[in-house]
Amino acid sequence: MAVGSFNFPTMPNIQGVKLNTVCAGIKQTVKDDLLVIALDEGGTCAGVFTRNAFCAAPVHVAKSNLAHNPRWLLVNSGNANAGMGRPGMRDALETCAQLAHLVGAKPAQVLPFSTGVIGQPLPVDKLVSALPAAVSGLSGGHWDKAARAIMTTDTFAKGVTHCLDIDGHSVHFNGIAKGSGMIQPDMATMLAFIATDAKIGQNLLQTCLAAAAGQSFNRITVDGDTSTNDAVMVMASGYSSAPEITAGSQALARFSEALLGVCKQLAELIVRDGEGATKLIRIVVSEALTDEEAVQVGKTIAHSPLVKTAFFASDPNWGRILAAVGRAGIHKMVLDDVQIFLDDVCIVNHGGRADGYTEAAGQQVMDKAEITVAVKLGRGAACQEVLTCDFSYDYVKINAEYRT
Amino acid sequence: MAVGSFNFPTMPNIQGVKLNTVCAGIKQTVKDDLLVIALDEGGTCAGVFTRNAFCAAPVHVAKSNLAHNPRWLLVNSGNANAGMGRPGMRDALETCAQLAHLVGAKPAQVLPFSTGVIGQPLPVDKLVSALPAAVSGLSGGHWDKAARAIMTTDTFAKGVTHCLDIDGHSVHFNGIAKGSGMIQPDMATMLAFIATDAKIGQNLLQTCLAAAAGQSFNRITVDGDTSTNDAVMVMASGYSSAPEITAGSQALARFSEALLGVCKQLAELIVRDGEGATKLIRIVVSEALTDEEAVQVGKTIAHSPLVKTAFFASDPNWGRILAAVGRAGIHKMVLDDVQIFLDDVCIVNHGGRADGYTEAAGQQVMDKAEITVAVKLGRGAACQEVLTCDFSYDYVKINAEYRT
Repeated sequence: MAVGSFNFPTMPNIQGVKLNTVCAGIKQTVKDDLLVIALDEGGTCAGVFTRNAFCAAPVHVAKSNLAHNPRWLLVNSGNANAGMGRPGMRDALETCAQLAHLVGAKPAQVLPFSTGVIGQPLPVDKLVSALPAAVSGLSGGHWDKAARAIMTTDTFAKGVTHCLDIDGHSVHFNGIAKGSGMIQPDMATMLAFIATDAKIGQNLLQTCLAAAAGQSFNRITVDGDTSTNDAVMVMASGYSSAPEITAGSQALARFSEALLGVCKQLAELIVRDGEGATKLIRIVVSEALTDEEAVQVGKTIAHSPLVKTAFFASDPNWGRILAAVGRAGIHKMVLDDVQIFLDDVCIVNHGGRADGYTEAAGQQVMDKAEITVAVKLGRGAACQEVLTCDFSYDYVKINAEYRT
Repeated sequence: MAVGSFNFPTMPNIQGVKLNTVCAGIKQTVKDDLLVIALDEGGTCAGVFTRNAFCAAPVHVAKSNLAHNPRWLLVNSGNANAGMGRPGMRDALETCAQLAHLVGAKPAQVLPFSTGVIGQPLPVDKLVSALPAAVSGLSGGHWDKAARAIMTTDTFAKGVTHCLDIDGHSVHFNGIAKGSGMIQPDMATMLAFIATDAKIGQNLLQTCLAAAAGQSFNRITVDGDTSTNDAVMVMASGYSSAPEITAGSQALARFSEALLGVCKQLAELIVRDGEGATKLIRIVVSEALTDEEAVQVGKTIAHSPLVKTAFFASDPNWGRILAAVGRAGIHKMVLDDVQIFLDDVCIVNHGGRADGYTEAAGQQVMDKAEITVAVKLGRGAACQEVLTCDFSYDYVKINAEYRT
C-alpha cells in the first residue's frame, strides 16, 4: 500500500551520466537487480552514508573510495552484503575490482552499493558474470529501469527530475530512490542516486549534499530504525553550459536549493511508500528555540507507536500527541505556551484541550490521507519539519512474515 | 493476552496500612474503581513520578504534597484527569480536600492518583459521593481488591509480597501495580503502590525508592512511550519490631535490596501483561563502559519495531538486533569485539554472523515464550538489563481500536 498515487516522470538524459540495468539473478527472479552508473571523466561525486556502526561492507568501501575521483557506481538489490564480517568486505572489493578491470578504471574509482537480505554471502560470481552486459548497454536514458532495479519491497519506482535556470543556462537534475522502511525487511535500506550536469567541485558538492540530506532524508522516519546500508549519492558531470558553481556565489545558493528540493521530493516518496503506510503525516514544529529542539519534538511524535496507531485508526486521540510532546525532553517547556493543531484545528492550548475543540472537527481531519500536525512551542523562532506515516496491521504483517 | 500465567499471591496485612475499594461509577461499570490507602500517623511516604512535561494534574498535586507528611492515597481508575489544564488541577485538589475533610486530615496530607481516559473531566461528584463508603470499610486485608480496582486494560491483577529478616526481626513488603503499555490506551499509565512495616525516615525512603525504581520500572518498555500519570509510591508504617533503618547501616543495604526485588517483580508483571504481548524479552547488555551505555544499547534494541515484530513472528532475524546495536550511538564501538547471543546461542561475533551459527539453533530459541538477548560490548565491566515484550497485531488492534 502507498499513500497517494505516483507516476514516474519522464526523465531527460543527464549529459555525462550513463546507466544500465541487467538481471544478475541475485534476487532469484527475472527482474533486473544490477545497476551500473558511469560518470564521464572530469565529473565529481559526493555521498552521505548511514551512521549505523554496523554498516555494511559496501558502505565502508564506498566511503573510502569517495576520495579517489569515483566514476562508477555498482548497485545490486536482493542482497545487502551486511553482517558478513571480513568475507563481506572481500566480496565488495572483488566486485569493484572486476568492474574496474572491465572498463579500464582503478578499483578505487568504483563505489559499491547493496540492498536486500542481510547475513547471506553476496553471490559474487553471478554479479560479476552480469557485468559485461551491464556495461555494454550503458546509455543516458535508463532512469526508469534504474529506479525499478534498486527496489526491494517498494511498491512503486521513485524518481524526480528538475531543471534549474542559472543566468540563462539550464542545469538538470535526475534522482531515483528506494526504501519503504528506514530499515527494509532485513535492513535492505534506503538508497538514492542523483545526477546533475552542473559543474561543481567535489568538496563543494559534498557540502551541498550533506546540507540537503540533513533537511530531507534525515527528516523522515517510518519506524525509527537506521539501516546498515543507507546512502545518498550525487554525481555532477559538468556538461551544463552554466559556469562552474563556486563557493559564496548566488548560483551556489540556487543550486543548493534545487538539490534540496530534489532530495525532499525523493524523501517524501519514500515515506509515501512506507511499509504498511495508509497516511502521510507532516509534523511541523515551530516557535522552537533551536532547529535541534524542533527536530527532537518532531521525531518524538513521529516515532510514537501510540500516535502512529491512532492515525492508522483515524482516531483524533490528541492526548497521545500531547504526551509525545511532553516526553520529548525539552528543557523548561512552558505548557501554557504550547499549541497543537491537526491541520487548522487547534486541539491543545493553555496546557490542555483547546476551548471550542470538538471531536467532530478532529475526526474530519483524521479521516484524510494526508495530515499536518503543527506544534507551536511558543519559545523561539526555529521551525523544522518531519515526515512520517502511520502504523498499521500491514507494518506488523510485512515485518513479521517477511521470512516465513 | 499475557506472557505466562500468574496467580495473585496471598498477602499478609502490613500493620499501620489500611485500604479499601468501592465502585464510584467512574468506569461506567459495576467494578470497583476507587481505592483509598491510609497510613497510620508516624509513617513515612516516598514517591517517584513521570518525567513527562505534560504530566497530569494529580501528579502535580501528589508531588507537591509529598513534603507534607502524607497519610492518605486516593486512587481512581477510569479517568486520568490529564490534559485538562486548570480545571483538572481544581478537580484534583477538590477530591483531596473532600477526603481530608471526611477523615479530619489536612488536604495536603492526601496524594491523588488517576488512571484511565485522558481529556475528559474527572467526575468529581461521583468520586466524592463514594468516599464515605470507601473510608468506613478500610482494613488491612484488601490488597487483592486494591490491585483489581486500579486496573484499566490490564488482563490480570498484579501483586508481590516479600518478607525480609533483619537481625531476627521481620520486615514485610506488599506491592501492587497496574499498566500494560508504558502508556495505556489514552495514557492511563503505570502505577505501583508498595507498603512496608519498616521504620525509615522519609528522605532515606525516597533515596531507596528512587534507586529501586531506576533499576526496575525505568528498565522496562512496552512501546517506548512515557505516560502523563506514571507514579510509584512506597509507604513505611514503622510497626516492624526491627530497629529504625538508618543511613550507612547494614540493614539499609538489605532493605534496599528487598525493595528493589519487589519493584523488579512488579515491573516484570507489567511487561508480561504488555499490550498484545506474546513474548517476554530480557535484554542483558554487559561489558559496557558505563551503566548508561549499557541501558542505551538495551533500550535501542527494546524500542526497535523491527526487532519486536521479528520476536512476534519467532523469526531468528538476527540482523535486526545487530542493526539496533549499531545505531545505539555508542562512541567508538569496536565491532569485532561485540558478541550477541539468543539465550546461549551465539549469533554475532567478529563483526558478522557467528561461525557455526545455524538457523535451526536460532529458531529453537525464538520458539520460546521467554527469551534472553545478551549483548557483550567487549569494552568494560558495566552490565544492565532491560525488559520488553514483542510487537503483535494485537498491539496495533488494541491501540487503533480502543476508542472505536
